[in-house]
Amino acid sequence: MAIKFRVETTCPATGARAGRLSTPRGELETPVFMPVGTQASVKTMTPHEVEAIGFRIILANTYHLYLRPGADLVEEAGGLHRFMNWPHSILTDSGGFQVFSLARLRKIEEAGVTFQSHLDGSRHFISPEKSIAIQEQLGADIIMCFDECPPYPCDYDYARRSMELTHRWAARCQAAHRRRDQALFGIVQGSVYPELRAESARTLTEMDFPGYGIGGLSVGEPKEKMLEMLDVVHGLLPRDKPRYLMGVGAPDDLVEGVARGVDMFDCVLPTRIGRHGTVFTRTGTIIVRDARYARDFGPLDPDCGCYVCQNYTRAYIRHLFKSGEVLALRLATWHNLAFLHRLMEEMRAAIRQGTFPAFRTEFLRMYRRAGTSGDPSKGD
Amino acid sequence: MAIKFRVETTCPATGARAGRLSTPRGELETPVFMPVGTQASVKTMTPHEVEAIGFRIILANTYHLYLRPGADLVEEAGGLHRFMNWPHSILTDSGGFQVFSLARLRKIEEAGVTFQSHLDGSRHFISPEKSIAIQEQLGADIIMCFDECPPYPCDYDYARRSMELTHRWAARCQAAHRRRDQALFGIVQGSVYPELRAESARTLTEMDFPGYGIGGLSVGEPKEKMLEMLDVVHGLLPRDKPRYLMGVGAPDDLVEGVARGVDMFDCVLPTRIGRHGTVFTRTGTIIVRDARYARDFGPLDPDCGCYVCQNYTRAYIRHLFKSGEVLALRLATWHNLAFLHRLMEEMRAAIRQGTFPAFRTEFLRMYRRAGTSGDPSKGD
Repeated sequence: MAIKFRVETTCPATGARAGRLSTPRGELETPVFMPVGTQASVKTMTPHEVEAIGFRIILANTYHLYLRPGADLVEEAGGLHRFMNWPHSILTDSGGFQVFSLARLRKIEEAGVTFQSHLDGSRHFISPEKSIAIQEQLGADIIMCFDECPPYPCDYDYARRSMELTHRWAARCQAAHRRRDQALFGIVQGSVYPELRAESARTLTEMDFPGYGIGGLSVGEPKEKMLEMLDVVHGLLPRDKPRYLMGVGAPDDLVEGVARGVDMFDCVLPTRIGRHGTVFTRTGTIIVRDARYARDFGPLDPDCGCYVCQNYTRAYIRHLFKSGEVLALRLATWHNLAFLHRLMEEMRAAIRQGTFPAFRTEFLRMYRRAGTSGDPSKGD
Repeated sequence: MAIKFRVETTCPATGARAGRLSTPRGELETPVFMPVGTQASVKTMTPHEVEAIGFRIILANTYHLYLRPGADLVEEAGGLHRFMNWPHSILTDSGGFQVFSLARLRKIEEAGVTFQSHLDGSRHFISPEKSIAIQEQLGADIIMCFDECPPYPCDYDYARRSMELTHRWAARCQAAHRRRDQALFGIVQGSVYPELRAESARTLTEMDFPGYGIGGLSVGEPKEKMLEMLDVVHGLLPRDKPRYLMGVGAPDDLVEGVARGVDMFDCVLPTRIGRHGTVFTRTGTIIVRDARYARDFGPLDPDCGCYVCQNYTRAYIRHLFKSGEVLALRLATWHNLAFLHRLMEEMRAAIRQGTFPAFRTEFLRMYRRAGTSGDPSKGD
């Protein structure tokens, strides 16, 4: 087994669970948030900074790396870990989501998907087998099945057909996968239809993957729908396997996801909104570019002890944004990642101490979402 | 005295000198290169990274900071050091060079210069007294007299009139300057006319500044002219005061400047060319964006031990540039600054060990300039 997973504590009042996940690159505690390094870089950050915040697993995007610099080159560099100088765990997605959201002129067939690159219009074909081959070349520790991610809204018939295709593709991925040092996760689909989600969870459970992605959520559906789908799969997925809610990273969504048994998350939200000047605080997001912060000589978040909050003021960071300085992007990104890392740490501690329900209530009471979107990544 | 300067070793065969400069923020060794932090940020770098490379003095641009965020705001933040979280020495220029190179519709009169902001077209007036007042608000350790920087080419009569104006302005700056914790440097002008340069050096020496800028060079004149002007002033400026060659930072120019008695340099070159994908090596610059480096898994410079060269390959950095990743700008900037820091360190050591002439010959033999320009900054 490429990975080991152990649930150590479960919250009696919610679905929350605290555990440990081991990959060939080391051990990490769950629930965990994974920063996104789409093009083999967590945008604006060095790997050492990502590590210094405390992260031990990141995500990279197969679609982007396949197009540029190419899986052959990454393999020749010694794999993605060496290419980008990140010694800890990596998860790659399958490329499916990006093919459906970014690429042009795509044609979906039983065999796979033909599409045009969003970079140069070149034509490509990715099948389940090809996605696995690319992910084996990249060499991440956890890889994902090639799936179809249906849009929202999506009628029942399309959602069913799409889910069934995803299941057949999952079987082909499983059959094609060779590298024993990588764990291949299945992906639960089914749009916002509880019976499809349930069927998908059951079907994939029978296929016995070492972990499960929950895909196709946070694509525009009402948040209650997302939470309802999590409630459905929570009762059905095997309790001893990690569950990864794909593309979700708003602080309140992380708390609600953890409450429903999710162990892993990824999202471009913290890095993307950071680059646009929006930063997390315990009481909600603030737009640090705003004129109101021009003479605010306090830290981004008075409750935060991260490198950025220890060393720089809102006034300075605002000045950097107004002046177009790269350091602005770095500091906002850094703080947002540190904020989410600490949030996960606090949730893990609360679960272990039996105080997660109180933590959840208090966090959500304080945190006003203030217009940030948790919508998922086409890559960051 | 705000600063102390001591020449400790002089090279018997050249004009090179090694010494120590103390400011209220600490001591540093000369000759020294100062990275440029135009808008209170050495572009792409945190102050901790600039410090980690080994720098203990940086430059900031008065013109830019006066326009944005404004000297009042910086003063309210506790001065530039606190505003940008840089505890070591800072030198601010006078704003003169930028008024002449960046601002629009400028009108030069005896009283000062009226100009329009390059940012928003707003009208401003800077006099010698106003430049000093702004620099006192910013609070750098070394500040510069407000001067006129004539263009190249420049006829003799204009160069003479301009130089004389600069001298009268220098006297006004000296009279206006109040803060005893700041050292005010005069600036030698005179275009490429040896007799004007000599007259300027003598006049300013009589005015007894604690240090001297050498301005108006590397503005398009042939390099031999620049070196000739350095030879002229070298013999005339007081030997016990620091000499600062403004806006020069190409590696070969640094070596030739040191050979002519220069103690301090600043330039946007390392940071600017870095952001465009050009990096220094001991054998000249390379354009790491080039396709030829796509599969080059060695460091930027095989002779360099900086953080970047220890951790990242040319292939990876090229990929980051091709993919538009901010980390590309950071790594190239970091390496270029580290390269210049090490070059200055090696020159200081060579002067102290009596081997500077051999170092100079060998460095210049190895280093091919390869089309990089040493042209000076309008700010970085």
